[in-house]
Amino acid sequence: MKFKQGRIFLLRVPEGEELLDFVNRFAKEKGIKTAIVKGIGSLRNPVVGYYSEEIKDYKRIELFGTFELLTLLGNVSIKDGRPFAHLHVILGNASGDVFGGHLMRGEVFVAELYVQELLGKPLVRKERGNNLSLWDEEPL
Amino acid sequence: MKFKQGRIFLLRVPEGEELLDFVNRFAKEKGIKTAIVKGIGSLRNPVVGYYSEEIKDYKRIELFGTFELLTLLGNVSIKDGRPFAHLHVILGNASGDVFGGHLMRGEVFVAELYVQELLGKPLVRKERGNNLSLWDEEPL
Amino acid sequence: MKFKQGRIFLLRVPEGEELLDFVNRFAKEKGIKTAIVKGIGSLRNPVVGYYSEEIKDYKRIELFGTFELLTLLGNVSIKDGRPFAHLHVILGNASGDVFGGHLMRGEVFVAELYVQELLGKPLVRKERGNNLSLWDEEPL
Repeated sequence: MKFKQGRIFLLRVPEGEELLDFVNRFAKEKGIKTAIVKGIGSLRNPVVGYYSEEIKDYKRIELFGTFELLTLLGNVSIKDGRPFAHLHVILGNASGDVFGGHLMRGEVFVAELYVQELLGKPLVRKERGNNLSLWDEEPL
Repeated sequence: MKFKQGRIFLLRVPEGEELLDFVNRFAKEKGIKTAIVKGIGSLRNPVVGYYSEEIKDYKRIELFGTFELLTLLGNVSIKDGRPFAHLHVILGNASGDVFGGHLMRGEVFVAELYVQELLGKPLVRKERGNNLSLWDEEPL
Repeated sequence: MKFKQGRIFLLRVPEGEELLDFVNRFAKEKGIKTAIVKGIGSLRNPVVGYYSEEIKDYKRIELFGTFELLTLLGNVSIKDGRPFAHLHVILGNASGDVFGGHLMRGEVFVAELYVQELLGKPLVRKERGNNLSLWDEEPL
């Protein structure tokens, strides 16, 4: 799907916000339907998911403490008629070891967030019978 | 090298595609010479490379199973007259542990791919006598 | 904060450069006040930081050898009247294991650097009394 460049936002998310919830509210408030989302910072007690093809659902991985948010990368598209953020995070601890997954929860200590809006026909997530809501495939 | 914004694509790569091959074919089919490529999703049995300065070649690292594709980041430029994707991947397992390298192979389970075309004088990869094909350096 | 797209740069940083220093000099020389920075490549003997909420300072993590630079992600904004790069790196070793943190030092073996300038009212970093220089928060 082809898009045009929309608005560009770079901002500091307030400390204490739930990061995933903030991105969803940000998209809704700004009227964003499609976007690329990136960020760096530091997250408290993040919870990430690993999708298992075997059990056809997410396994929940809870991490405790404050982690460097090394990379946040994902997108906003439409699910159930609303903007919906799908975000992956990569996290570092005090030893430099790294953990990561699909962002489920995480309290912001610091988050420098970059949101690049895309304009065009919105991509829509549909439940595929395996607890995954995905856009239609686009073969070459 | 300075570029202008070209076309913007955001799409779901079909399940079962070889991801690196898909990006190369995508670039060729769309006539893309320069691009930034990003993505998230889930990859099966990825193979990544680590370039060793000592042996002057890539060491091959094979991973087995399905991994969260936490971040795909790379670019498209010209090598041997054709668009060529250089992509790095960061992968997470069911415990939240993380692995990564230079993408050699990986079957798509899910891939949400963002391709940002850049317009300008193409960057060209040339073999540097060490099994690395690199652009010319740009000193400040 | 809302921005407009500025100049776009994609380049190979010369081998032997100190990466963080190069990005700061690049921003200064090009007159860049705000930017998103990304990259992939390979770094020698990187030093990364983990910010500890307890001790209110960065812990320094020294890594030895050459690592794949799996992802570099960060931004440029204004600190003490000058452009200042805040960059996070994710690094891979010969086994595919991954390390990362806030970039403090790292000698370039290879670095393919993408700098996207943003135009608008500059974001300014201010010391917050905890060894962190941060932009003002932007509540929703």
